[in-house]
Amino acid sequence: MKISIVVTLKKEVLDPQGKVIQQTLQNMGEKAVFNVRQGKYFELDLNENNYEKAKIMAEEICKKLLANLVIEDYKIMDNS
Amino acid sequence: MKISIVVTLKKEVLDPQGKVIQQTLQNMGEKAVFNVRQGKYFELDLNENNYEKAKIMAEEICKKLLANLVIEDYKIMDNS
Repeated sequence: MKISIVVTLKKEVLDPQGKVIQQTLQNMGEKAVFNVRQGKYFELDLNENNYEKAKIMAEEICKKLLANLVIEDYKIMDNS
Repeated sequence: MKISIVVTLKKEVLDPQGKVIQQTLQNMGEKAVFNVRQGKYFELDLNENNYEKAKIMAEEICKKLLANLVIEDYKIMDNS
């Protein structure tokens, strides 16, 4: 089964890359965008058909490899 | 309102970064993971309270700046 994960910087951590995107959008005339945060997205294909079990596995993987929990949060997306 | 966007490589495009993550997981003993794809995640704060309008705006921004449509797909996430 496919599990989608989003890893984002914690909201109290500065995101200079997002800031640059927001400024670029301003310069391009997209005045409605007042904040941008960038993160990482992962799609895992797992040999596991039970969503709950796959989710637990994915959390383990986030903690061990994908996210730096000091400055980042992870979110397992709902099955879709 | 907040709009979340995911930009991924088209599935026919090689994703070496995802491949490395998958191999690393194998080496760490996570044998159940047989494929990993990596992408980018963006969270935009928009001065627009109508979801449909915000979504159209976000698509425009994806096409103009966030995604390279030659090799990437974008997806506007459902409001949550």
